[in-house]
Amino acid sequence: MRSAEILIIGSELLTPRRHDSHSPYLIEKLTGTGIAVVFHATVGDSRSLIARAFQEGVARADLIIATGGLGPTADDLTREGLSDAFGLPLVLDSGLLGSLEARFAARGLPLPEVARKQALVPEGARLIPNRVGTAPGLWCAIVHGGRRLDVVVLPGPPDELRPMFEEQVLPRLSGLADGVFRSRILRIAGLVESAVEERVGSTYGSFDNPSTTVLASPGEIQLHLTAWGASGEEAERTCEELVARLRPLLGAHLVSDNGEEMEEVVGRLLRQRGHTVAVAESCTGGLILQRLTEVPGSSDYVDRGFVTYSNRSKTELLGVPPALIEARGAVSPEVAVAMAEGARDRAGSHYAVAVTGIAGPSGGSREKPVGLVYVGLAHRDRSWAERFWFSGSRSRIRWAASQAALNALRLELIAGGA
Amino acid sequence: MRSAEILIIGSELLTPRRHDSHSPYLIEKLTGTGIAVVFHATVGDSRSLIARAFQEGVARADLIIATGGLGPTADDLTREGLSDAFGLPLVLDSGLLGSLEARFAARGLPLPEVARKQALVPEGARLIPNRVGTAPGLWCAIVHGGRRLDVVVLPGPPDELRPMFEEQVLPRLSGLADGVFRSRILRIAGLVESAVEERVGSTYGSFDNPSTTVLASPGEIQLHLTAWGASGEEAERTCEELVARLRPLLGAHLVSDNGEEMEEVVGRLLRQRGHTVAVAESCTGGLILQRLTEVPGSSDYVDRGFVTYSNRSKTELLGVPPALIEARGAVSPEVAVAMAEGARDRAGSHYAVAVTGIAGPSGGSREKPVGLVYVGLAHRDRSWAERFWFSGSRSRIRWAASQAALNALRLELIAGGA
Repeated sequence: MRSAEILIIGSELLTPRRHDSHSPYLIEKLTGTGIAVVFHATVGDSRSLIARAFQEGVARADLIIATGGLGPTADDLTREGLSDAFGLPLVLDSGLLGSLEARFAARGLPLPEVARKQALVPEGARLIPNRVGTAPGLWCAIVHGGRRLDVVVLPGPPDELRPMFEEQVLPRLSGLADGVFRSRILRIAGLVESAVEERVGSTYGSFDNPSTTVLASPGEIQLHLTAWGASGEEAERTCEELVARLRPLLGAHLVSDNGEEMEEVVGRLLRQRGHTVAVAESCTGGLILQRLTEVPGSSDYVDRGFVTYSNRSKTELLGVPPALIEARGAVSPEVAVAMAEGARDRAGSHYAVAVTGIAGPSGGSREKPVGLVYVGLAHRDRSWAERFWFSGSRSRIRWAASQAALNALRLELIAGGA
Repeated sequence: MRSAEILIIGSELLTPRRHDSHSPYLIEKLTGTGIAVVFHATVGDSRSLIARAFQEGVARADLIIATGGLGPTADDLTREGLSDAFGLPLVLDSGLLGSLEARFAARGLPLPEVARKQALVPEGARLIPNRVGTAPGLWCAIVHGGRRLDVVVLPGPPDELRPMFEEQVLPRLSGLADGVFRSRILRIAGLVESAVEERVGSTYGSFDNPSTTVLASPGEIQLHLTAWGASGEEAERTCEELVARLRPLLGAHLVSDNGEEMEEVVGRLLRQRGHTVAVAESCTGGLILQRLTEVPGSSDYVDRGFVTYSNRSKTELLGVPPALIEARGAVSPEVAVAMAEGARDRAGSHYAVAVTGIAGPSGGSREKPVGLVYVGLAHRDRSWAERFWFSGSRSRIRWAASQAALNALRLELIAGGA
């Protein structure tokens, strides 16, 4: 298997709040092609640090994918760093210079002096055409310290990098790899991480291939399986073998085994049954509706929704009796049920789901603390409520509540059958 | 100024879909303390690659912050790599061994053989107590190649790393730095990136300190200013100097100059005026309501909201005349206005904002293409609509539409005065 190193060049990526989107993208693409990424670094716009980073990569990998620093300005130093690292003089590429001049001439402008450096190329490098921007990529095959190393340099803007990588780099790389990875994501709801581990830990732990990673977020546990095989089909079969073992252990808690999101699963089940849903939200404030309608085509099964933040709106829009709110409180199973029934009856939908709770940070009390949430569900002549207690920030509680509501609907859809 | 390198250790971070949350966190904290991060790398669980990465750092930085690989299992190799890199033999720390044994004994268990390695410490390293988990951090002061280097190793789990770094590492580091960074975020709405550049590019470009980065997302341009100063106050003053120059150039397009989000600004303006808003959403499907209610305390000014996905629900919930929908289409300025008026009148709120549009990917036509959005606004005796055309994915169009609606409300709140 080939090993690769990723080198992200740009000082801005070493400052707060800018994050590198290239590495996750490149890791996914390279891994999918069967190339293992063994090292990944971000280096600032310093000629000497860039040169050093290229040199250091030789001992680790036989492929370096570098990004950024190919523009015309003074802080674009990737060409220079690459040249210094391997003693490749920069030579003016007259074809490239001509196309740069033509591009400016088309706008009636002379080529600015500073832009000429974009026509400099390390000796022996192959140019990779850029069909979006001005800077072509570079591909150097280098023999250094007795080893062969491929260095591919891609432009920094994602809309230039991605098509160039997928159309012109990846096809050549995949021919060189001797196997591929495939992965699967299993989403699980209604179980905490340790409960998932108890049910399936020893099973996935007994497999070396696929390897399994567990990711826990509020209201959802994900299992990421990654299998290696000589072909895509073989790797997929290897994944499926483990998935088939896990399915019965997870039962209805398994939301999807192909990466499908909760709202997509709920939408698919509603569509299959030709049923509709209405939503009434208090503390989640529109989040459940927003998630449901993020799915294309959701107008087939989402008719309407009510965000009833005030008590008065719960009464006016959903018909929740003021006396009930007075007696039980707005955050109560009785009000959750009345909200769901009101939404179902007023929308004329098959199902309605409702949420009332305390998302915080304030508004909690000893009897009704922040994080207390009731999910109400109404279906045909039945309606009921379920109680949850979530911890964390306002946004975490809201997300977990939306997840619990969608999961309650999903379980009812499954139980109700087609 | 001190320079730092960050070394993230863990093979899982070189696989798809796992992302490194430590680096952004550490970059922000270090930068805020006046320590420049010059390099950042992720390295897999290989003893030789870890050792090499530590060695390479010497030439770049005088501080290396490494994370992860301190656990008890076979793939936890950070101690070993550090030991190899600088020739520091691993010695058994009897105090540490005793506390590990005590921790297990408290649960009635003997210390597993494999866990003993957690008591091994590179000679001369200082232990950093871990008040959450079992593995203490390590702090080594190393003289290597004639230079002094501090190496700090932190445990991988974020809930162990962050308190340890903030309580025990950062205070010592900040005493060593000779200045600090401060940053400001300016949010701008209603202008595309090139229009922002035209208005303010030459102004911020004339400042070396603060440095400025422009980030464009659908419906919002952000300017990130980062200033350096001998003290926090000085750095803040330097930021404010540039902000004061930019304010008049941006006018009402400047949503906030302190990082405040659009929905926070709108909420603050509503609260200051003692006014309320109702929302009617079609293509945004609850997103505007979800954003407004994400702000704590938003129940003071959000009374209720309507997600009217179907034509029937627009009529039943908002009183939009069926004949109007028939004549002009659901996606029209007339329907946007009728939705806003209906929401305002039925909620009895001061303001109402409404959105109707085509989020795609299907449902577009030649006259009404995907991305066409009307925002309706109703305030007192007035109501009107504004037309937008957004491009991109469904989720991008929905976000841009929610941003346009909130911005229209913000501008009306400003124009209406207190």
